[in-house]
Amino acid sequence: MKKHNFSAGPCILPQEVMQKAAEAVVELDNSGLSLIEISHRSPAFIDIMERATSLALELLGLQDKGYKAMFLQGGASLQFIATAYNLLENKAGYCNTGTWSTKAIKEAKLLGDVVEVSSSKETNFNYIPKGYDIPKGLDYLHITTNNTIFGTQYKALPETDAVLVSDSSSDIFSRELDFSKFGILYAGAQKNMGPAGTTLVVVKEDVLGKVSHQIPSMLDYKIHADKESMFNTPPVFPVYTSMLNLEWLKNKGGVAAIEKENDAKAALMYGEIDRNPLFDGFAATEDRSTMNATFTLNTPELKDHFEAMAKEAGLNGINGHRSVGGYRASMYNALPIESVQVLVDVMKTLEQKA
Amino acid sequence: MKKHNFSAGPCILPQEVMQKAAEAVVELDNSGLSLIEISHRSPAFIDIMERATSLALELLGLQDKGYKAMFLQGGASLQFIATAYNLLENKAGYCNTGTWSTKAIKEAKLLGDVVEVSSSKETNFNYIPKGYDIPKGLDYLHITTNNTIFGTQYKALPETDAVLVSDSSSDIFSRELDFSKFGILYAGAQKNMGPAGTTLVVVKEDVLGKVSHQIPSMLDYKIHADKESMFNTPPVFPVYTSMLNLEWLKNKGGVAAIEKENDAKAALMYGEIDRNPLFDGFAATEDRSTMNATFTLNTPELKDHFEAMAKEAGLNGINGHRSVGGYRASMYNALPIESVQVLVDVMKTLEQKA
Repeated sequence: MKKHNFSAGPCILPQEVMQKAAEAVVELDNSGLSLIEISHRSPAFIDIMERATSLALELLGLQDKGYKAMFLQGGASLQFIATAYNLLENKAGYCNTGTWSTKAIKEAKLLGDVVEVSSSKETNFNYIPKGYDIPKGLDYLHITTNNTIFGTQYKALPETDAVLVSDSSSDIFSRELDFSKFGILYAGAQKNMGPAGTTLVVVKEDVLGKVSHQIPSMLDYKIHADKESMFNTPPVFPVYTSMLNLEWLKNKGGVAAIEKENDAKAALMYGEIDRNPLFDGFAATEDRSTMNATFTLNTPELKDHFEAMAKEAGLNGINGHRSVGGYRASMYNALPIESVQVLVDVMKTLEQKA
Repeated sequence: MKKHNFSAGPCILPQEVMQKAAEAVVELDNSGLSLIEISHRSPAFIDIMERATSLALELLGLQDKGYKAMFLQGGASLQFIATAYNLLENKAGYCNTGTWSTKAIKEAKLLGDVVEVSSSKETNFNYIPKGYDIPKGLDYLHITTNNTIFGTQYKALPETDAVLVSDSSSDIFSRELDFSKFGILYAGAQKNMGPAGTTLVVVKEDVLGKVSHQIPSMLDYKIHADKESMFNTPPVFPVYTSMLNLEWLKNKGGVAAIEKENDAKAALMYGEIDRNPLFDGFAATEDRSTMNATFTLNTPELKDHFEAMAKEAGLNGINGHRSVGGYRASMYNALPIESVQVLVDVMKTLEQKA
């Protein structure tokens, strides 16, 4: 039985993408060679990297706007220190909306002055702070557009004169935003972009080159940009599969089209969480993530029964993160609404039997 | 036609490994899910990581000797700065044997005092220096056991009281050495271990924790070791495929068995380079790499003819690096001796026709 894969990441990707990726591992485009045994300096792979970076910019509406897209390694976690290395000269501001922004703050503090301009830590990060003051003169302001663990998401970007930097690992390519407001946007691939092992970094080139300290080469975005993501051997398979996935998204109609699907899935999911008396949503209603719905079962004695029913129905990956408990339905781009319907049906059946 | 793949890296891997990796991208072990859509926290992937790290230590003969094997991201290039972050308190020594050690030196200098204890730069790195003095009191001594670009390889390790650190990207798992002499051994996967996108770092745990500065989390080997390579989302496909490849190597009889095959391939290749009056070897005879044979054609007017014949015979990836010119035959573990024979035959035919 094919599972309904609600995994928070690595997560579901389109079947046709996984099929094409598998074929390329056997042989790439009738070349007589596997994707994973060709040189990254070969014309075939240079073309793959070029298509992947172009598609990323196109889908974000950032072509010809002074941005460079790069496929790097290390996950968003390496970008925590890299963004600070590239931008932090005097003082940086961070909005603390969860586990990942807390980690980003910790790394940036190794390199300079960091101001936590807002935080929802006091309520276990169940909302996105609004209406806070942003000090003048920041080198940059860092946000996390979607908080995978807590299920919150920025609906509007903060207004700031500082360079806006975002960790968008769990909602990039899922909805339209004015991406030209960002100076740096980064995202680990393993949600809506591709398999684990590469990280998209999109940089407005004019924000770079303004710090006085030296930057380790592998953390220097200018080096990676100038070398077209080929300063060292790139992660070939994750980049290729990301390219396939971005092509799939473009063929579906791009970010605007997928956003409609994601909104429909989220409406179905949150509709049931709100309707069903056995379940409670975790995140503040106005800040609910369309990607990760977090909720709890308010009748603990039904836990085993619910989880057995979920397993029986082929639902995979709905356990909540230990920081929140309960359940989390991650509804990334490739998850069909039919899978959400199966989960909703299980929740309804539980209510009827209770 | 299947090519004879002499690519310097990413490079040939065993056919059965590529086939199994492709199958897992479609579905992992009848799980109903693809390898690339499962959580890295799932029991299935935790088992994969554990098998990969155990196999790495076993094949190096380092089990139960205080070592930890980790599969990280960023390539050997990220380890240049990471090794310095983890070990460099006062002064480090580097043996400069090529492009990659030159880059390693550059990164380490960002963090402290670096002594170049030996160098073969004056002869374009065509040999491995020997008989140099190593200063006392170094935090570590860094070598590059095999120099992919120049085709040189250490046949004996330097004698030193300092922690010995090696970039062994292009000869790890290809020959036996007393690996317990190393404090840190690292290698990008994309030669003899697996596809591009992961890096093996093997650390003797007691060499860590001795520096007084703070280390960015993603560069801190102690953090990665304590988290069993799961501090952040690991590169799932490269790790899985590396595991398959290490299983393949173990089933072949391990490093001792593959070393015999590699020696036979190298003997065939260098035998022809030395015998054929049209070709000259680049590296000093006693330092010749069994992995990368570098050679030039001493009759430039035959260049086009040789390259057309090579293409006709299905030879892929034999162009030399621009730093050396000429040709390079990379003969990694998975390259069959039959491929070397095809190249040798082309060289012989060229001589007969010349």
